[in-house]
Amino acid sequence: MFLSNIRIVLVRPTHPGNVGATARAMKNMSLNHLYLVAPEDFPSTDATDRAVGADDVLENAVICASLDEALKDCHLVIGTSARQRRIEWPSLDPESSAHRLVDGAQLGPVALLFGQERTGLLNAELDRCHFVATIPADRNYSSLNLACAVQILAYEIHRAGLSGSSATLVDSVEGDRPASDEDMQRFYRHLEEALQQIGFLDPANPRRLMRRLMRLFNRVVLDRNEMNILRGILTAVQQHREKFDKNDQE
Amino acid sequence: MFLSNIRIVLVRPTHPGNVGATARAMKNMSLNHLYLVAPEDFPSTDATDRAVGADDVLENAVICASLDEALKDCHLVIGTSARQRRIEWPSLDPESSAHRLVDGAQLGPVALLFGQERTGLLNAELDRCHFVATIPADRNYSSLNLACAVQILAYEIHRAGLSGSSATLVDSVEGDRPASDEDMQRFYRHLEEALQQIGFLDPANPRRLMRRLMRLFNRVVLDRNEMNILRGILTAVQQHREKFDKNDQE
Repeated sequence: MFLSNIRIVLVRPTHPGNVGATARAMKNMSLNHLYLVAPEDFPSTDATDRAVGADDVLENAVICASLDEALKDCHLVIGTSARQRRIEWPSLDPESSAHRLVDGAQLGPVALLFGQERTGLLNAELDRCHFVATIPADRNYSSLNLACAVQILAYEIHRAGLSGSSATLVDSVEGDRPASDEDMQRFYRHLEEALQQIGFLDPANPRRLMRRLMRLFNRVVLDRNEMNILRGILTAVQQHREKFDKNDQE
Repeated sequence: MFLSNIRIVLVRPTHPGNVGATARAMKNMSLNHLYLVAPEDFPSTDATDRAVGADDVLENAVICASLDEALKDCHLVIGTSARQRRIEWPSLDPESSAHRLVDGAQLGPVALLFGQERTGLLNAELDRCHFVATIPADRNYSSLNLACAVQILAYEIHRAGLSGSSATLVDSVEGDRPASDEDMQRFYRHLEEALQQIGFLDPANPRRLMRRLMRLFNRVVLDRNEMNILRGILTAVQQHREKFDKNDQE
């Protein structure tokens, strides 16, 4: 079943009780693949107590040292956020997020990220996301309990799975598989390097520009062929520049 | 704001932590009216700990000795259930339930009921409900944590509130206000009495028939005028029978 391609990733969770409650919320909605990035306290009896019959999800949880590990092979990454941010990430409601994840899961692994209880996802973590899912909430009291946030998204994923979701995304990228998270990270490093070499990007203050570019390309959801073309262009730009430098020195 | 007409009613909650988490889940979705029917352990520091900033919802919670107290003045009652039952109650998904509650709240108090953690709502409690909301879940692991179930319904209510919901129900009953829960209970007692008097209902085994009738009339959502007509019919039936008995004795 393609729901097994959906990873629920908790980034640096602080309270083991929330990890256990997350396992239960997932299993209630037929999701079983939990990834924990640098959990503060795990395994823990608090987690097992709150899992109530979802112990198998906890036992099979993949413990990762870094977000890179958790996102390995994923071609679609959606982060969750309650906060309004200065530069807006492309934002989706839970229902649309769920449909994208279910559609994407038919092609390979996808990930849904939840940040630490107190801080949420950091900007550097959101940069890894193609989209940000925002749960509509009370304007003055918008921060949900971690497991409750997982429950709402898992509920929407379950519903999207039941409804069969749309096959349109699958069709549209049939020509080639979507680029993986690793491919995207390599592409961004290549892009940053090339932009510095041509003097467009100031290495002293690269983040703002790169963030905007990442958001742009993440939103597009590149397939591997498009990715190769872009990497080819970057390489061509770099080679041209080397030639130009060489000519300049002669 | 009409959301203040929506009561979240926890019936005999066992774990104070769940009561606190429920308060938070409600406040996240702009719901503030919590009713607790015979809570096992409240107030409690466990509840306050898990409420995290929703202490006001806990402090203003209405503690009731009976379900009657909690449903006083309510004209629409929706219960929640994970279980499939022998005789089906009229069942709605969370989204439809939320729309009915939001529509109903524009006319007066409405209630959403959650049963005890281990047992859920009892049949006698479901008999008080116009509809039962069922959260779609994994076939083999369908029992959600109490606060997580509240979170999903509260989320759907919040969404229904944002979308403005439909005004159709309001229009359709504009001629008269819907019957209250007390009116309905009086009607059912009257009906049961009358059915026994005419020998249609066996007092030794009344529940199954009455349950079916309650489900029927609950689903209709009677307005006060219709209620008065039905009560009038029952009274007429009873008077006719008395006269008939009298004639018989002469």
